[in-house]
Amino acid sequence: MKFGARNQLIGVVKKVKRGNVMGQVEIEIPAASRMGSVMTTDSLDDLDLKAGDTVMVIVKAISVLVTKE
Amino acid sequence: MKFGARNQLIGVVKKVKRGNVMGQVEIEIPAASRMGSVMTTDSLDDLDLKAGDTVMVIVKAISVLVTKE
Amino acid sequence: MKFGARNQLIGVVKKVKRGNVMGQVEIEIPAASRMGSVMTTDSLDDLDLKAGDTVMVIVKAISVLVTKE
Amino acid sequence: MKFGARNQLIGVVKKVKRGNVMGQVEIEIPAASRMGSVMTTDSLDDLDLKAGDTVMVIVKAISVLVTKE
Amino acid sequence: MKFGARNQLIGVVKKVKRGNVMGQVEIEIPAASRMGSVMTTDSLDDLDLKAGDTVMVIVKAISVLVTKE
Amino acid sequence: MKFGARNQLIGVVKKVKRGNVMGQVEIEIPAASRMGSVMTTDSLDDLDLKAGDTVMVIVKAISVLVTKE
Repeated sequence: MKFGARNQLIGVVKKVKRGNVMGQVEIEIPAASRMGSVMTTDSLDDLDLKAGDTVMVIVKAISVLVTKE
Repeated sequence: MKFGARNQLIGVVKKVKRGNVMGQVEIEIPAASRMGSVMTTDSLDDLDLKAGDTVMVIVKAISVLVTKE
Repeated sequence: MKFGARNQLIGVVKKVKRGNVMGQVEIEIPAASRMGSVMTTDSLDDLDLKAGDTVMVIVKAISVLVTKE
Repeated sequence: MKFGARNQLIGVVKKVKRGNVMGQVEIEIPAASRMGSVMTTDSLDDLDLKAGDTVMVIVKAISVLVTKE
Repeated sequence: MKFGARNQLIGVVKKVKRGNVMGQVEIEIPAASRMGSVMTTDSLDDLDLKAGDTVMVIVKAISVLVTKE
Repeated sequence: MKFGARNQLIGVVKKVKRGNVMGQVEIEIPAASRMGSVMTTDSLDDLDLKAGDTVMVIVKAISVLVTKE
């Protein structure tokens, strides 16, 4: 499957945190740093995410903010 | 300066591509893969981005989509 | 493959329009209306989108604005 | 009123779920599938959303991710 | 009409810039500063925006990044 | 520090509201109106936001929706 987004990284779920409506996932991208993702708890359930799962992280380039000193 | 966003990565600009209204930047995150960013060409000019620049990439966790096989 | 996003619709590409940096796609969702998507022309090339292609459209629930009269 | 967004669908609220800070709404788009929206509970209160309400759903084309097998 | 978004500002269009696929609008929010918006040129045409037009600017709270020194 | 985003406003935090996963901040932009921001509670803790703090609000132009009567 191909995705219309510039940024696709493979990582491993490290932590899942559930709220009522929203949930948060911490993902380790090997040899890099961590990425955090927030989604509805419904999506969290659909994905059945747990620590150790391998996932792909997708970010549209338009959502990436660049800063420079 | 602190940012209210989960994902902050330091990288190096590899390529800058200009359109009329929008521009695109490819950024190498050391020991990881590349990130692409899209912004207005006005912002591109403000940042004065060129290949070799060190930048910080910021992504709000809500913009990160997680997929799993 | 599972996606951490509430909204996943299957549709058919009706039109593709290319700019320098950004491209636009019109997608017909059967028995519904059309959805438009904008992405980089690089992603347009990766996906190799053309009229008649069947695609899946994904939208995170947080990107959906609700209005009411 | 006109909106600077490609995607505008009319639907009916099916379910509203409230958290502390964020709320989630499921909307049925006639003859199509459901759309989910997430907003602050403050916005949920402003809109006074309840099952059966007719709403308009607006999505900027840039928030739409396209995937293809 | 009510909007499920925290941020709604009334302003006046100062400048419109067209590309092939995307367009950019500069809006003056009285007694404040300017806001920039980017949309497809199709939406630009639908809105028929020109300098002097009064518009409402809507931003979902989730799209607002906060920074602090 | 420079930001690749069209909209940068200085304001003062008026209210902070915490949920489990997400938090919400109300910010007063002098001589203008209020802006609301939503972020993870982790980011809320990193920023250590409290009423009276001066912050900068950043919004990418692509996240700004324009409407017109």
